[in-house]
Amino acid sequence: MEDVKRMDRLPIRVTIWNEHVHEREDEQVGAIYPYGIHEAIATGIKACAGDDVVVRTATLEQPEHGLTDAVLRDTDVLIWWGHVAHDQISDPIVDRVQQRMLGGMGLIALHSSQGSKIFRRLLGTTGSVRWREAGDREVVWTVCPGHPIAAGVPHPFIIPEQEMYGEYFDIPQPDELVFISSFSGGEVFRSGCCFTRGWGRMFYFSPGHEAFPVYHQAEVQRIITNAIRWASGGSHARETPYVAEMSPAGWFEDRPDRGV
Amino acid sequence: MEDVKRMDRLPIRVTIWNEHVHEREDEQVGAIYPYGIHEAIATGIKACAGDDVVVRTATLEQPEHGLTDAVLRDTDVLIWWGHVAHDQISDPIVDRVQQRMLGGMGLIALHSSQGSKIFRRLLGTTGSVRWREAGDREVVWTVCPGHPIAAGVPHPFIIPEQEMYGEYFDIPQPDELVFISSFSGGEVFRSGCCFTRGWGRMFYFSPGHEAFPVYHQAEVQRIITNAIRWASGGSHARETPYVAEMSPAGWFEDRPDRGV
Amino acid sequence: MEDVKRMDRLPIRVTIWNEHVHEREDEQVGAIYPYGIHEAIATGIKACAGDDVVVRTATLEQPEHGLTDAVLRDTDVLIWWGHVAHDQISDPIVDRVQQRMLGGMGLIALHSSQGSKIFRRLLGTTGSVRWREAGDREVVWTVCPGHPIAAGVPHPFIIPEQEMYGEYFDIPQPDELVFISSFSGGEVFRSGCCFTRGWGRMFYFSPGHEAFPVYHQAEVQRIITNAIRWASGGSHARETPYVAEMSPAGWFEDRPDRGV
Amino acid sequence: MEDVKRMDRLPIRVTIWNEHVHEREDEQVGAIYPYGIHEAIATGIKACAGDDVVVRTATLEQPEHGLTDAVLRDTDVLIWWGHVAHDQISDPIVDRVQQRMLGGMGLIALHSSQGSKIFRRLLGTTGSVRWREAGDREVVWTVCPGHPIAAGVPHPFIIPEQEMYGEYFDIPQPDELVFISSFSGGEVFRSGCCFTRGWGRMFYFSPGHEAFPVYHQAEVQRIITNAIRWASGGSHARETPYVAEMSPAGWFEDRPDRGV
Repeated sequence: MEDVKRMDRLPIRVTIWNEHVHEREDEQVGAIYPYGIHEAIATGIKACAGDDVVVRTATLEQPEHGLTDAVLRDTDVLIWWGHVAHDQISDPIVDRVQQRMLGGMGLIALHSSQGSKIFRRLLGTTGSVRWREAGDREVVWTVCPGHPIAAGVPHPFIIPEQEMYGEYFDIPQPDELVFISSFSGGEVFRSGCCFTRGWGRMFYFSPGHEAFPVYHQAEVQRIITNAIRWASGGSHARETPYVAEMSPAGWFEDRPDRGV
Repeated sequence: MEDVKRMDRLPIRVTIWNEHVHEREDEQVGAIYPYGIHEAIATGIKACAGDDVVVRTATLEQPEHGLTDAVLRDTDVLIWWGHVAHDQISDPIVDRVQQRMLGGMGLIALHSSQGSKIFRRLLGTTGSVRWREAGDREVVWTVCPGHPIAAGVPHPFIIPEQEMYGEYFDIPQPDELVFISSFSGGEVFRSGCCFTRGWGRMFYFSPGHEAFPVYHQAEVQRIITNAIRWASGGSHARETPYVAEMSPAGWFEDRPDRGV
Repeated sequence: MEDVKRMDRLPIRVTIWNEHVHEREDEQVGAIYPYGIHEAIATGIKACAGDDVVVRTATLEQPEHGLTDAVLRDTDVLIWWGHVAHDQISDPIVDRVQQRMLGGMGLIALHSSQGSKIFRRLLGTTGSVRWREAGDREVVWTVCPGHPIAAGVPHPFIIPEQEMYGEYFDIPQPDELVFISSFSGGEVFRSGCCFTRGWGRMFYFSPGHEAFPVYHQAEVQRIITNAIRWASGGSHARETPYVAEMSPAGWFEDRPDRGV
Repeated sequence: MEDVKRMDRLPIRVTIWNEHVHEREDEQVGAIYPYGIHEAIATGIKACAGDDVVVRTATLEQPEHGLTDAVLRDTDVLIWWGHVAHDQISDPIVDRVQQRMLGGMGLIALHSSQGSKIFRRLLGTTGSVRWREAGDREVVWTVCPGHPIAAGVPHPFIIPEQEMYGEYFDIPQPDELVFISSFSGGEVFRSGCCFTRGWGRMFYFSPGHEAFPVYHQAEVQRIITNAIRWASGGSHARETPYVAEMSPAGWFEDRPDRGV
């Protein structure tokens, strides 16, 4: 058996992917996130986790969207932010991210990434939501208080202005539901959802619109950091998922190695 | 194997249990539910399900609280409404209801029954909630639209005035979460929750305060009726749960009967 | 609100899809299933459910694989059997089945359909299994005895000869796990798994190899029939899933119709 | 917000509780576990986790069964081993353990602890199993390979001789099912099950009979150690669960402290 300490191998290697379109095309968004949403998220993570994580970023316009085999192989947790450019993601890159995630990489999908190819690919549903861009106040409630992603998060906490995301949210029932949000208009939303797929773990967190400074808020930064730790748990994983494997009777007798 | 049609044996035999205290002691409640909350629930069920169900009622003050062995043996689904008299329920009756539920009887726990002995016994948690009696508007959202309990229920529907029940609601993660409510004050609540325990199925539904005419509302009646059908699924069940059973090698070979 | 009785609209309209390759190309398989696996399944269902279901069949070689828009629109539950021809299914047909399933159609995936496009599409994982074709005895155990799919099923029941399917089975954690199988060689398998996706319900059931007369066995027929009833629950459903919908403040006030 | 590093506060404080009856009364058991099962478990944990854990033990015959308020307050994870003396546990001590667990303490219930008062109290079911003491070989299969409790555990691993524990195992559906075992006689068992209750996390692990040297086996020691880490996650918890709390409108505005 491998050494138990491998589980806690630090630092956790995080890659933040952002389509990086709004910030460059919309002056108002650019004012809130002058270096891009990815850099704001990176700053928040470093403030919370210090040397326990190493962060790099990648964007749509880079070759292979910045998600080369080499980058993914060195990534324990991938954070995804997309909105207007979902269709521009190349399908082979989506395949690659899916394979790597099924093989153990953590994935944190933020806000409108609920409509991205990778989100819909891993969950099998449309990811549809109701929405309204009217500066609703969002109140985020913890419904699984012992969960590591809720550690240290006030109950509830308030996001003063947010895009409304409302039910029905077309996702499979989460393996663990951690947060539910309410909005000024009366809507509710399952805003923090854990999913396990293959060796990998995915957390969806809805707060985070481009037009509001949500990623500068301490509670949001804390949740993303907690989710990184939780999602990195699968780093004791396989390279690639095997396809159906013929297994003669007794194949597992006297078998020293690990394999699933 | 038993006949497949036994599963759909009609009518479903429903017993509605109500502590029946508020309606007699509080004039305002008595005006809303002159014949008791149990009779209002019974009327709603009959309006929705007609001859598919047979309903009887039982109350706290009856001998054995109206829940004799004979009554429970003839009950496919038990509905429970309690609030101020939780502590007056005799423990042996709680044992009996629990055994019968683990053996296949459906259970529908309404509103403040989240603090009842039987609810806490079956779930293992405190059932704690936040609450406020201030006439908040409750909006009930469906988050599992294909579920039979959500059939025909508008999304969302509004209860004009309700007691607020807010998170954290101290329950195990439901096997299926069907409804989430929001309240005027900004709180959220997991208001429709399915649990399976042993052979039995339990549905918790929070709308239904004694001071508001909630059980006269068509959507609420429809949900309770849907839940009766869903919870009656275990009527193909065991008499009583066995305790640990020694099973010699080969015990299941050539075994014609069913037994779990 | 629609009439409560629509939920139980009978008969349930079932379409059995079979790739229908082995039975025609392999004499030994043809001897076991002379009219095709789909006809054997149809016979079993009719024996169990009588007039409560109407069954039609469809196969790979038909135009649009027999799964036209018209057929799917008239299908409450689709049964899927595929093995060697997964890759021959046209992608637009897979899209169509997925959309219809997310919109409320039930789906029962049998045996090696765990590797089919539609299975992997809906679950997001590879569906990988270990396997061995050596006539292992399979023993099927009920682990959710109150579930309607387990109604009337002996515990355990034995399939004298079966292909071994062993863990790790690469699926998301099922919403409800109903059966677990053991094999002579010592392997285990989650052999009966419920999933909800959108408005639709899917049941995966692993027993059923082409080289053994599994679909002639009464317990297997009973389980498939039970699953049809369970999976048809979503027939109170939407036509097609909407994509994100802008919802101005107050959109749900005084709204008479149902919509999610 | 509290410091993020509190989550990983080391060392984890573990208390191993053992009824300690078999080892003293049965010579054969005493030969396998000369210092008691609790000491064997402690040795295994220390070998795996080193200074990351601090272990103490407690037994039935001590005052308050060794589980005083002070001990529980200083315990992050409680391990429980009981079999023949379940009925000798005082009810107030069971209450105390339950309260502390709902408040965030981890609990690892081993083998025949499935029949203990605390297990049944937290789950609401009987914990019934089928069993046979005939030296069956147990093969333990991982069905949730990315789970931290499965980290570094060979798939499958073999326990040469074990008491058979077979389905139906009367528990609620686990929040996460990590291991399934098969036995020589053909039975299966959900042998590794995660449950969340309140702020606390519980792991049930069935391998571990008193008459076989199971706790000396490296894979078993590794799993228990992994489970300690997983179950200690709730240490960011409340002192005691509150009962229903009246919450006036706006109670959560400008609220600096954390509270659920």
